[in-house]
Amino acid sequence: MSVTAAQGFRAIGLAAGIKASGKPDVALIVNDGPTDHAAAVFTSNRFPAAPVLWSRQAVSDGSARAVIVNSGGANACTGAQGFQDAHAMAEATSHRLTEAGTEIGAGDVLVCSTGLIGELLPMDKVHAGIDECVAALTYDGGESAALAIMTTDSVPKLAVRQGEGYVIGGMAKGAGMLAPGLATMLVFITTDADIPAHELDQALRQATSVSFDRIDSDGCMSTNDTVIALANGASGSSPDTGAFTEVLTDVCIDLARQLIADAEGASKDIAITVHAAHSEADGLEAARAIARSNLLKCAIHGEDPNWGRVLSALGTTSAVFESDEVDVAINGVTVCRGGGVGDSRDDVDMSERDVLIDVYLKAGESTVTIWTNDLTSDYVYENSAYST
Amino acid sequence: MSVTAAQGFRAIGLAAGIKASGKPDVALIVNDGPTDHAAAVFTSNRFPAAPVLWSRQAVSDGSARAVIVNSGGANACTGAQGFQDAHAMAEATSHRLTEAGTEIGAGDVLVCSTGLIGELLPMDKVHAGIDECVAALTYDGGESAALAIMTTDSVPKLAVRQGEGYVIGGMAKGAGMLAPGLATMLVFITTDADIPAHELDQALRQATSVSFDRIDSDGCMSTNDTVIALANGASGSSPDTGAFTEVLTDVCIDLARQLIADAEGASKDIAITVHAAHSEADGLEAARAIARSNLLKCAIHGEDPNWGRVLSALGTTSAVFESDEVDVAINGVTVCRGGGVGDSRDDVDMSERDVLIDVYLKAGESTVTIWTNDLTSDYVYENSAYST
Repeated sequence: MSVTAAQGFRAIGLAAGIKASGKPDVALIVNDGPTDHAAAVFTSNRFPAAPVLWSRQAVSDGSARAVIVNSGGANACTGAQGFQDAHAMAEATSHRLTEAGTEIGAGDVLVCSTGLIGELLPMDKVHAGIDECVAALTYDGGESAALAIMTTDSVPKLAVRQGEGYVIGGMAKGAGMLAPGLATMLVFITTDADIPAHELDQALRQATSVSFDRIDSDGCMSTNDTVIALANGASGSSPDTGAFTEVLTDVCIDLARQLIADAEGASKDIAITVHAAHSEADGLEAARAIARSNLLKCAIHGEDPNWGRVLSALGTTSAVFESDEVDVAINGVTVCRGGGVGDSRDDVDMSERDVLIDVYLKAGESTVTIWTNDLTSDYVYENSAYST
Repeated sequence: MSVTAAQGFRAIGLAAGIKASGKPDVALIVNDGPTDHAAAVFTSNRFPAAPVLWSRQAVSDGSARAVIVNSGGANACTGAQGFQDAHAMAEATSHRLTEAGTEIGAGDVLVCSTGLIGELLPMDKVHAGIDECVAALTYDGGESAALAIMTTDSVPKLAVRQGEGYVIGGMAKGAGMLAPGLATMLVFITTDADIPAHELDQALRQATSVSFDRIDSDGCMSTNDTVIALANGASGSSPDTGAFTEVLTDVCIDLARQLIADAEGASKDIAITVHAAHSEADGLEAARAIARSNLLKCAIHGEDPNWGRVLSALGTTSAVFESDEVDVAINGVTVCRGGGVGDSRDDVDMSERDVLIDVYLKAGESTVTIWTNDLTSDYVYENSAYST
């Protein structure tokens, strides 16, 4: 049900011919109210795509009523024309919805795009898609919307959680360019909880910081990453912010894990946990450095518990640790003890898809997990065989 | 001729059975004097290998007479026993050389190892190899030494330059884990110039900063990287430091380019030049971020001039630039102009092995080049199919 699981949200996804494949490529989400609270986090990339520029501005007042999304083109690095096109998508959505009886100003329409960077969108097809979406909007359109935002994803990503008297549902897309600071990742979350915009914003930032910010597929950060949350209060339930944040975090972690599990070419899901770090920042730096080692990711692909490559990556960081105190366990076997040889590599069973790498810094009390995946020939193939 | 091109240096490389393959795996270089000036730079990895710990201390007085090297095992992350083994290699080399009439103290023997991290060396074989090396040392042994330091290298790397009245020769090994701050890279340079140790040190640091520090194969930094320079004054020529640094830099760049050209699985040699950067540090940060984008490296492998991936990587840096002013040229075609679409991708010829990526930041006057290579299925295969 994804974005239509909560009361009072309509959605739809359909094919407008933007993708050469003919697959679904336009999605629309509409919030029927009563409230129109919205929050969003965006890529920190310094080449933000045109729709990011538009949506960042549009959501800055804490309200939004609709989101129009296209796949098949990122509308990134497209200059002034690209921004005009993003603006035109908001205007057309506003216009068509108002004609159809749902009065929404263009400033309350957020815009997202995903696909190839550096090409202008085929706006005639986009406009036709918007028209069709408005006509087809439905209270059970969440799944069709989730299909329409996919690019190299092999499966749609959906999540729903029940809070006390309210529902949070969401959908996500993203398979490559997944990295902290978000990625070629679009995430849409809706809730019928009655929560003020500033609390929604606070909850969203907290939830993304421990979910989407903790997955790192290939260290590459995209120009289009966006996570949007819409709240309409339709349930009449006004949750405590802490409890709401917990449920929202649960939804975000669920979607984040689905993203990393579907990462391009991946054959292993790797959880890198840094224990006893001096600080959370230290733990994050260490875990990310390890998660970005191509050599380690190749070794895991080859089912080789190559702990030397864990230490090599850790050794490039500024995290607090003594090199002769660090332990490393792979799938529960402490293959490195005190920075040197530990238990036998041969005892490590690497046959499962899930791989656990636990690093003990013995420098403090913070624990941080980053989720990543292995580096495979399929990743190379998917990212060299055609433009994405 | 490599390390025996300069007068007064003997060397040898041979097979001692450390490598299961039976290929050459021990090399020895001896400086016959008259001077014994030496300088070295080492990995900045915080898990330096045992031989790095030994050699860093041994060369700190600016003198060294011999270098004993093994491939087939990195002696890294091997704890106290590993350090004892590195020490024993220096002692044994000193002992055997002295017996053979070349009196050299253990403190003047530098030690280098390369190969798998986290396993102790088979010291009986190492000792037998040292004995054989001392017996076989010769004034034309440079090429055999270059063969014996190879691991996954497909070819030995040699370079020789003639200065005014003196010669600088060198050899290098390294094919993966090549990154700034040096890598699984061992480099040995000898010269018969008469140059004081502190000037040799200064020249070596200058030369490595614009050669080995500017190649980045896979962003991974090794525990064993070492560059050693030995000067014996045998030519009687006392060059100006500036002129000497220039010749030395030329040797280092030659070897660095050979390393990157032989990087594991590479099918493209990529030169990323950042022009008009605000500072050299900015240019380096930008060029390195681009060089480390797996997505870009896959695209280049697929002969796709995907400039969006150049901007995506650039956008993660803190370098000074305005996003709507950046130009990117690939093989001479300005595919991105002012942060947006430039000339047609179709005009870019990617069929050659060499690929030039030129990024114009328009923020200053610094120009920096980083050399890297593409990311291929062969890289994944070489680094997943067996432990290295």
